[in-house]
Amino acid sequence: MTRWQDPSLSPDERAEALRAEMTLEEKVAQLGSAWPGNDQLNGNVAPMQDVFARGGVPFEQVRADGIGHLTRVFGTAPVSVAEGVARIVALQREIVEETRLGVPAIVHEECLTGFTTLGATVYPAALAWAATFDPELVERMSTAIAEDMRAVGVHQGLSPVLDVVRDYRWGRVEETLGEDPYLVGTLGAAYVRGLEKTGIVATLKHFAGYSASRAARNHAPVSIGPRELRDVILPPFEMSIRDGGARSVMNAYVDLDGVPVGAHRGLLTGILRDEWGFDGVVVSDYWAIAFLKSMHRVADTVGSAGALALAAGIDVELPDTLCYGKELIELVRSGEVPEDLVDRAVHRLLRQKAQLGLLDPDWTPAAEPVDLDSPRNRALAREIAEKSVVLLANDGVLPLSARRIAVVGPCADDPLAFLGCYSYPNHVLQRFPEFGIGVEVPSFVDSLRQELPDAEISLHQGCPIREEDRSGFAAAVEAAAAADVCVAVVGDRAGLFGEGTSGEGCDAEDLSLPGVQDELVAALLATGKPVVVVVVSGRPYALGRHASAAALVQAFMPGEEGGSALAGVLSGRVNPSGRLPVQVPCVAGGAPGTYLHPPLGGNSEGISNLDPTPLFPFGHGISYTAYEYSDLSLSTAEIPADGALSISVSVRNAGERAGEETVQLYLHDVQAQVTRPVLALAGFARVPLAAGEQRRVTFELHADRTSFTGLDLRRIVEPGTVEVFVGRSAADLPCAGSFEITGRVREVGPYPVLTTPVELS
Amino acid sequence: MTRWQDPSLSPDERAEALRAEMTLEEKVAQLGSAWPGNDQLNGNVAPMQDVFARGGVPFEQVRADGIGHLTRVFGTAPVSVAEGVARIVALQREIVEETRLGVPAIVHEECLTGFTTLGATVYPAALAWAATFDPELVERMSTAIAEDMRAVGVHQGLSPVLDVVRDYRWGRVEETLGEDPYLVGTLGAAYVRGLEKTGIVATLKHFAGYSASRAARNHAPVSIGPRELRDVILPPFEMSIRDGGARSVMNAYVDLDGVPVGAHRGLLTGILRDEWGFDGVVVSDYWAIAFLKSMHRVADTVGSAGALALAAGIDVELPDTLCYGKELIELVRSGEVPEDLVDRAVHRLLRQKAQLGLLDPDWTPAAEPVDLDSPRNRALAREIAEKSVVLLANDGVLPLSARRIAVVGPCADDPLAFLGCYSYPNHVLQRFPEFGIGVEVPSFVDSLRQELPDAEISLHQGCPIREEDRSGFAAAVEAAAAADVCVAVVGDRAGLFGEGTSGEGCDAEDLSLPGVQDELVAALLATGKPVVVVVVSGRPYALGRHASAAALVQAFMPGEEGGSALAGVLSGRVNPSGRLPVQVPCVAGGAPGTYLHPPLGGNSEGISNLDPTPLFPFGHGISYTAYEYSDLSLSTAEIPADGALSISVSVRNAGERAGEETVQLYLHDVQAQVTRPVLALAGFARVPLAAGEQRRVTFELHADRTSFTGLDLRRIVEPGTVEVFVGRSAADLPCAGSFEITGRVREVGPYPVLTTPVELS
Repeated sequence: MTRWQDPSLSPDERAEALRAEMTLEEKVAQLGSAWPGNDQLNGNVAPMQDVFARGGVPFEQVRADGIGHLTRVFGTAPVSVAEGVARIVALQREIVEETRLGVPAIVHEECLTGFTTLGATVYPAALAWAATFDPELVERMSTAIAEDMRAVGVHQGLSPVLDVVRDYRWGRVEETLGEDPYLVGTLGAAYVRGLEKTGIVATLKHFAGYSASRAARNHAPVSIGPRELRDVILPPFEMSIRDGGARSVMNAYVDLDGVPVGAHRGLLTGILRDEWGFDGVVVSDYWAIAFLKSMHRVADTVGSAGALALAAGIDVELPDTLCYGKELIELVRSGEVPEDLVDRAVHRLLRQKAQLGLLDPDWTPAAEPVDLDSPRNRALAREIAEKSVVLLANDGVLPLSARRIAVVGPCADDPLAFLGCYSYPNHVLQRFPEFGIGVEVPSFVDSLRQELPDAEISLHQGCPIREEDRSGFAAAVEAAAAADVCVAVVGDRAGLFGEGTSGEGCDAEDLSLPGVQDELVAALLATGKPVVVVVVSGRPYALGRHASAAALVQAFMPGEEGGSALAGVLSGRVNPSGRLPVQVPCVAGGAPGTYLHPPLGGNSEGISNLDPTPLFPFGHGISYTAYEYSDLSLSTAEIPADGALSISVSVRNAGERAGEETVQLYLHDVQAQVTRPVLALAGFARVPLAAGEQRRVTFELHADRTSFTGLDLRRIVEPGTVEVFVGRSAADLPCAGSFEITGRVREVGPYPVLTTPVELS
Repeated sequence: MTRWQDPSLSPDERAEALRAEMTLEEKVAQLGSAWPGNDQLNGNVAPMQDVFARGGVPFEQVRADGIGHLTRVFGTAPVSVAEGVARIVALQREIVEETRLGVPAIVHEECLTGFTTLGATVYPAALAWAATFDPELVERMSTAIAEDMRAVGVHQGLSPVLDVVRDYRWGRVEETLGEDPYLVGTLGAAYVRGLEKTGIVATLKHFAGYSASRAARNHAPVSIGPRELRDVILPPFEMSIRDGGARSVMNAYVDLDGVPVGAHRGLLTGILRDEWGFDGVVVSDYWAIAFLKSMHRVADTVGSAGALALAAGIDVELPDTLCYGKELIELVRSGEVPEDLVDRAVHRLLRQKAQLGLLDPDWTPAAEPVDLDSPRNRALAREIAEKSVVLLANDGVLPLSARRIAVVGPCADDPLAFLGCYSYPNHVLQRFPEFGIGVEVPSFVDSLRQELPDAEISLHQGCPIREEDRSGFAAAVEAAAAADVCVAVVGDRAGLFGEGTSGEGCDAEDLSLPGVQDELVAALLATGKPVVVVVVSGRPYALGRHASAAALVQAFMPGEEGGSALAGVLSGRVNPSGRLPVQVPCVAGGAPGTYLHPPLGGNSEGISNLDPTPLFPFGHGISYTAYEYSDLSLSTAEIPADGALSISVSVRNAGERAGEETVQLYLHDVQAQVTRPVLALAGFARVPLAAGEQRRVTFELHADRTSFTGLDLRRIVEPGTVEVFVGRSAADLPCAGSFEITGRVREVGPYPVLTTPVELS
């Protein structure tokens, strides 16, 4: 047993010992990755022996020097779980047996809506988890995902997405946890805990600023200053590292005020490591280092792109080795790049390999096939879906009691409309139609028929999701006119790079529904029949034109059990409890903007004619019961700048059926040295309440939770009045109070209190 | 004669002497202003004796302590020039005779489209001057404006607007000089020179960042970092101070990354004074100091708002005294605000008063009525209008030869559609309909009838500018179908705070034409008759839907002679020579974005489905002749980082009539330490060319003109390849070359070369 294999030594000691044994070539190889079978995306499943031959790194080189990561062995082309396991075992064995030092690779996969491989459970999209406002549930889901991945030999998942939504037009909104940093951070940290406690490395992405790109175009430049970055964009990352224990971070593709993040030392090293003490591994987003040359044009060769990224703090290049290769080695040999930078990154990676057991003397590529869409998984997928559906408005038409129901709309009978862009069916399988969807995904109309066996349910597409084809309008309108009620299921189809209406590279010019769906809904509303508009989408769309609908329901790509969940809400089997993690705008134009704004970011009558007030506010969602708030009390009227207080409120289910209310705490800093949001979410709790039941909800609020980035860019708590609001949404806050922070401005130390614990009694 | 009256002393000495004689009350009063007659905006012209009584400052106080500025004595309510002069004389006499020290006020007025008072020439809007690409012409205009203002007793004009357009939806785009900092700075400096050489203080506004507000809503927060601020937003201000000699600067209303500009010491003092050496007076935008309390909430009293603004560097509060009043005096007395801050501001103001002759012993309020809409003015207004009309596309239908012409559209017979928001008729007179427009403004159709006396010209409005009224479509379409050619005149009506479709507080949700005008144009195009679409607007609108028009013409609120200029272009009397200072977008959504972007800010196929490529590029504009480019030559292939080179090109009028071609020089920094624009305008020249004539255009380019804000926020010239392009627009560049900057990175000193001189031979 060599020293680096010795489990009695610390991971740091073992990493150091191994690094010291490595040649420069072997070290740089550890900073790279290989993507077996990437070419298979073109449509052919390559024979096993070819998987390296066609990747970015020839297998000869991997055999010679080793490799840091193996990229998406499962997730690239359709393979059965047994075949995927066999590939991982075979590839790892080759690496261990053929390389001089025999260091296995870290195997990473995507897992945003579940393990992204053929036949694995497709959970709801991240925006739907966010709509549950339920961190415990999210953690159960990520634990299940992690257990499946771990069983088949995967070490790292490239999730969660912690980008805070700034512009609903961005295609990747569906991958996020919404527009509030505290919600994103709380749910993101919960997701991370599920992965990390199961031994899977979580990867926080995209660090940082990606969501604020110009006009919401994918990869477009980001105009942002350091204060907005620190107060809005970064908190979820800090929370997920400190409270979640994330061990990996992925850089954002974009540039911030002209500095590409892949070369942004201040962010990747200054804030991430020096300020926050992160000691995991920073991986590049796919091809992001090469983009420093080809897109951002801050480097003139792949080697110098690699040198910039390495110096900034990217440790491992994904998905294959382009810039951390022989040109980088030459720059090290010539002295242009200090070998210390290589050693720093290698050390971090090898320390992680030690933590993962990959350096243990008895390590073998333990992996075995498991049921990736187990009943446990499906039940979880259904629970999340049910808790994520948001009832926006209801004049009493819901739950449905009508006999004749006209189901209309392009998402009514399309299972793929329920699945996010990073689900395997939408991410990869669309290119392999012969494999089917890979898991069972009942459509909405099938689920509704099952849910309401006695109803007469007709089905008309009305129009496609995207194409400007009105030829189906007449039949749909006729069906609606002939029915007692019409259910219009409209929205998105996720895809990649323009293949869909939502998803990576599928950005929107405005927030009208794709294609002619707004016209379809207007035509249905014009029949005068009650219309239930169900929007199944990856982003919020402007629904101001449809405010007269009898009911409005919002689902955010609710996953393989989404049809059942939606049908359950419409039938009344499920009492809806989802809440909006993003606003639902009123008008299609006027982007960007979210609820998190200072006074002049909102409606400023007499100053601008435009009013960005949404149709439905952040946090909104109604149910089939009613909740009453009362008795807000604060434990004290004054706290020092490092103090804390309790904020309690009573909430009562005043209706006749059980439900779950999400109690929301918002703060307003009345006056500050910089502009501050009119309201910012500071705490929340999902509270189950039987009919007639009342509970007391207590938030433990530390003064740190009022902190912000002051004029001199330090994080401070500032004395003064803080107004406190508790209620149902950012625009429905029946309880109000305030407290004073006394004393002087206090600089918050390196370990601020990041969360607001809640107790229910 | 007291010391401060002594003209043999320097303005600094006289200001110091006067300040030393003042009580604290008198000093603070100098930092304030009074707006006689502001209440008259409600509709009544107050009798002379009331003008102070109803303003923000009671006349008793002015009589006691004096006053810094008098606000818009002419420009608030309709007065004849004789009455305005009488008021100024009377008010100044009262101030001089009644106050202890007898220091006259600085009288300021608006003057963006000309002196903003009843009966004064309404020149084209600023965006139209920008379309001339003609600094000499702009300087002639501002000289004429200044001479008129000076004659009637005005000292300072609140122009020009140097905001660089970032989002076409912003209501104030019409007030700007377009989207390129070099164009804005060159024309802005020329405007300033005209004012300053005539003795009128020019006021650069809005310093800085106003145009980058969120979703283009007026006063909304600005997400921006220091590099974008320095490289895009600030250059026109630096140019107008250093090359133009501007003596006043006005703060922007907005916050930058959370810091309201009115309290932004780094900008108002750090950059403006410490870096650039500005020694004039910083005035507040109207009520901007009070907004620190009421809008930005960074102050809790008007006194502390005043203290913040004073410390940041605002010297004078406009339009009346709210925050620089007795509460501020109390803060000084209590020691909370150092009196030095008051003295610093007072000194600057008094120095300016000394420069203006206001402290001279023989000063009298010399003012006399003049013809404010003289033939000289009207000729200038016409020349600018004619040179500003941009012919976007023409299939040969222009010049018009048809006999039967159907003129259609809401801007065809509306003189106000030609006038900007800051023209007196649109800014004030709309509230006083009994005064009429105040100057003669022929409408388009009247001008066309005069221009083409033999044509049969019908007129149909088709639809209003803004209301959704399609009742006029049928008649308009019928007229078009019956004619040989249809001329559709569509666009904006300027107004204030939602009264118009363009102008201050008249922002747009997207870039479709206001109201149902897009539908009107589509209906006209559907007739199959040739349609000439003339857009008369304050911002560019998306014209992708109308690309099949026989001709497209863009005018930017061309002023009182706009009808004649447009008719002249259509008839062929005028050979069009205007160029786009902003892009004309293709689609209505997808904002913001301008031509000035790094690679990922443009079309990035395969990364985002959205393509921001405009329908017509920045700098575009065709004519009735054709220009050919040839023989690009560079005087050297290499320059040091502080060197210069000559870039020459030949341009020939290959057509059969005389015209003026605007030759444009663009640079592309191939690789840099931060992301850089794909193209940036570095020089331009309007070149008159007789038919068949060829001239040689030579740009003298200094290395400083390639400088940018580097990673560490210093302004640097970086070695490497610079590509050079010369041609007709940012997308039509027939001549290309490159040169190398050699040596090491050079930090640019405090006095960089800001311009690119051009020689014609």
